[in-house]
Amino acid sequence: VRLHGRRFQHVIAVHRATVGAELCVGLLNDRIGTGSITHVNESALEMDVRFDHTPPQKLALTLILALPRPKVLRRVLRAVSSMCVPRVIIVNSFRVEKSFWQSPILGEKNIQAQLVLGLEQAKDTALPEVLLRPLLKPFVEDELPSLANGALSLIAHPQASVPCPRHTQQATILAVGPEGGFLPYEIDKFTACGFTPVTIGSRILCVETVVPALIAQLC
Amino acid sequence: VRLHGRRFQHVIAVHRATVGAELCVGLLNDRIGTGSITHVNESALEMDVRFDHTPPQKLALTLILALPRPKVLRRVLRAVSSMCVPRVIIVNSFRVEKSFWQSPILGEKNIQAQLVLGLEQAKDTALPEVLLRPLLKPFVEDELPSLANGALSLIAHPQASVPCPRHTQQATILAVGPEGGFLPYEIDKFTACGFTPVTIGSRILCVETVVPALIAQLC
Repeated sequence: VRLHGRRFQHVIAVHRATVGAELCVGLLNDRIGTGSITHVNESALEMDVRFDHTPPQKLALTLILALPRPKVLRRVLRAVSSMCVPRVIIVNSFRVEKSFWQSPILGEKNIQAQLVLGLEQAKDTALPEVLLRPLLKPFVEDELPSLANGALSLIAHPQASVPCPRHTQQATILAVGPEGGFLPYEIDKFTACGFTPVTIGSRILCVETVVPALIAQLC
Repeated sequence: VRLHGRRFQHVIAVHRATVGAELCVGLLNDRIGTGSITHVNESALEMDVRFDHTPPQKLALTLILALPRPKVLRRVLRAVSSMCVPRVIIVNSFRVEKSFWQSPILGEKNIQAQLVLGLEQAKDTALPEVLLRPLLKPFVEDELPSLANGALSLIAHPQASVPCPRHTQQATILAVGPEGGFLPYEIDKFTACGFTPVTIGSRILCVETVVPALIAQLC
């Protein structure tokens, strides 16, 4: 294979790799292996690659996330992709700014670019599924019951009385609200589908902090 | 009190507060309470404030962090401050770029500004202590033994065989390396001080993801 552009730059500037070096390589949505660098020039490199093992196992977790600010969404997508979350459903909420839904970050290619950065970070190749649901009510009423069926169903809520479970080791679906939180009416919609409000403390954390914290505590 | 500038803008644009509204307020390194808005004009607002309770309890955790990129450090400082970490020691490591130590973010005022943003997010007022140790060897040899004395001493290491403990509920000191990890030689320096290498999985996570994840799993 021949690498140029961003990945070439990364190999040269970060790995400082030269001919003969071995790098971890992977095929998107396929296997992982090793690449031996055979040629380097000023704009590209060539590798002999072989693929001999499967990517790491995904968590049994679906994350429902109220759409955050575009800049934050980029970082959260990278984080959840690096943490092996297989599915993210981005939903609306009363406290989500309407303009966020117009952001170019929500384009399929832009989402995939962030997910790939997370996969590269974690040496994974299996792209998470990202679904956009800009209308909360029909999503919760029509899709959520079957998504949540059989799964531990949790909604993060700083004022909840139930602490977030630890190390659950079962299929889980977790909803995280916007900065400012879901409205009580929205939380009721989730609890009507069998979701339990859970807390990791009354401190209000920003989305990019609370998502890795909740995943680490749960999984 | 009279607010203008960033805090005034936040109250108007995010809280959309008007005269009569009550806001959570706090005095830095002091108590927390309530402010009632009495006047608003186009550049400032006035509040009657009363302070009637103490800030949330800090975690019994010292975080030792290899200096990350300045942009990442800003976010990590906000995150640890919002998660009630009382002390952060920023250290050098072979894989830390030397230029990072010249960054203006390491100035006392800039560090405090990020910590205050984290405190505001979490409704806390007690500023964490941040120490800079640009030389790893004398820090580990001269200061670390007494800092680690009596505490659960852990160093995050993706290839460790021991899983990171959960919900320890005891005084803990946790070291987190740079992207690329501590060198084996550096890890040996920590283990010689009684640190145990622990892992939350073989996936390599970026610093701003792994820090909230480790804190959530430990505390």
